[in-house]
Amino acid sequence: MGNAGRKKVGVLLSGCGVKDGSEIHEATLTLYFLDRAGAEIVCMAPDKGQRDVIDHVRGTPASEGRNVLTEAARIARGDIRDVKDVKAGELDAIVIPGGFGAAANLCSFAGDGPACTADADVAALLEALHKERKPIGALCIAPVVVAAALGKACAPELTIGDDADTAAALEALGARHKAAAADEIVVDQGNKIVTTPCYMLAQSIKEVGAGVEKLVAKVMELA
Amino acid sequence: MGNAGRKKVGVLLSGCGVKDGSEIHEATLTLYFLDRAGAEIVCMAPDKGQRDVIDHVRGTPASEGRNVLTEAARIARGDIRDVKDVKAGELDAIVIPGGFGAAANLCSFAGDGPACTADADVAALLEALHKERKPIGALCIAPVVVAAALGKACAPELTIGDDADTAAALEALGARHKAAAADEIVVDQGNKIVTTPCYMLAQSIKEVGAGVEKLVAKVMELA
Repeated sequence: MGNAGRKKVGVLLSGCGVKDGSEIHEATLTLYFLDRAGAEIVCMAPDKGQRDVIDHVRGTPASEGRNVLTEAARIARGDIRDVKDVKAGELDAIVIPGGFGAAANLCSFAGDGPACTADADVAALLEALHKERKPIGALCIAPVVVAAALGKACAPELTIGDDADTAAALEALGARHKAAAADEIVVDQGNKIVTTPCYMLAQSIKEVGAGVEKLVAKVMELA
Repeated sequence: MGNAGRKKVGVLLSGCGVKDGSEIHEATLTLYFLDRAGAEIVCMAPDKGQRDVIDHVRGTPASEGRNVLTEAARIARGDIRDVKDVKAGELDAIVIPGGFGAAANLCSFAGDGPACTADADVAALLEALHKERKPIGALCIAPVVVAAALGKACAPELTIGDDADTAAALEALGARHKAAAADEIVVDQGNKIVTTPCYMLAQSIKEVGAGVEKLVAKVMELA
């Protein structure tokens, strides 16, 4: 009853921390603007080991292992599901925050570059959402996940800001890259895919907020 | 030059995650609203072991150990200092986000309740800031840190929402408690201390944002 008419939006996380998981500011501001827009939020992540664990003070690898879902639960305050249990039919849209975890845990871009593939459960969900004409938002480096899952199928127009190497990799995956400023969004209306550079270009958290606020508004409009 | 005239505001973190560190939404929204208000931000945390490491999916203790500063660096994107190296003279104000880490790593409230003491370096910084008439903001459960450090000295008026047991503990520490709603702030004008309940009462992140936005505005005004 309480949720009647509310749009249900997935937030796909990849851990907790910019250097090995979801970028925390991007993820939190996504939740904030979705809540303000009246969305019902479904946080999710793959239940598997992280590719890396990085000491965020020193920037060096730690010897321990961590689990993507368990760490992402820190951002979700424990209210999170395994991505493989989430069906496209439950959702009206999805947003993927950035952070190195998007490139390392949601797809194999961190290791394989333009030859990367998406995590199988992530790919299945994104393909089904796209088939059902539901919008997909992606921040920062997360457009590589979209390109890995959907690049060949629909040649989406995406932005990761203006980094030439990353843009070339996106194009090798079948996407089309369009440069954008930190607080701008790129909208592929036909594919219902919305992207924004966030910390690929942003100098501070308020610029991230500006881009995320626009992206969330557009995703909600398309949903 | 670039920072001339900007107010320098400390953000005192206690780890990364509501159940054993800083509550991530409260910490991130503090950074967001401070940045929007034009503050120069100095993130800091104690460089010591966390009291607890909690699996945020299951809510159960993990066997590993983690360091407060190293985990807090995830929220600060690596730009963080040991609290013991930060001098009150450098700052115009400080804000302490909540989360269980405030009660477990910044003071001993989690173990000692109303008999708790503040971490020695945290206490020294808060005492010096108070002596210099610089504002202190505290969210959620973090007012217990302020009460542990300054309760006997200045009997600050604080809020942690409306929980009777926690309010009684604050009063045992020498503070005066005033009930408040999720999105309200309590301002002790004489002591320049500003508090807001956040997730002690908030039902969702947009209510947290409303309280944090007001608290940051008041702290900047008093600074």
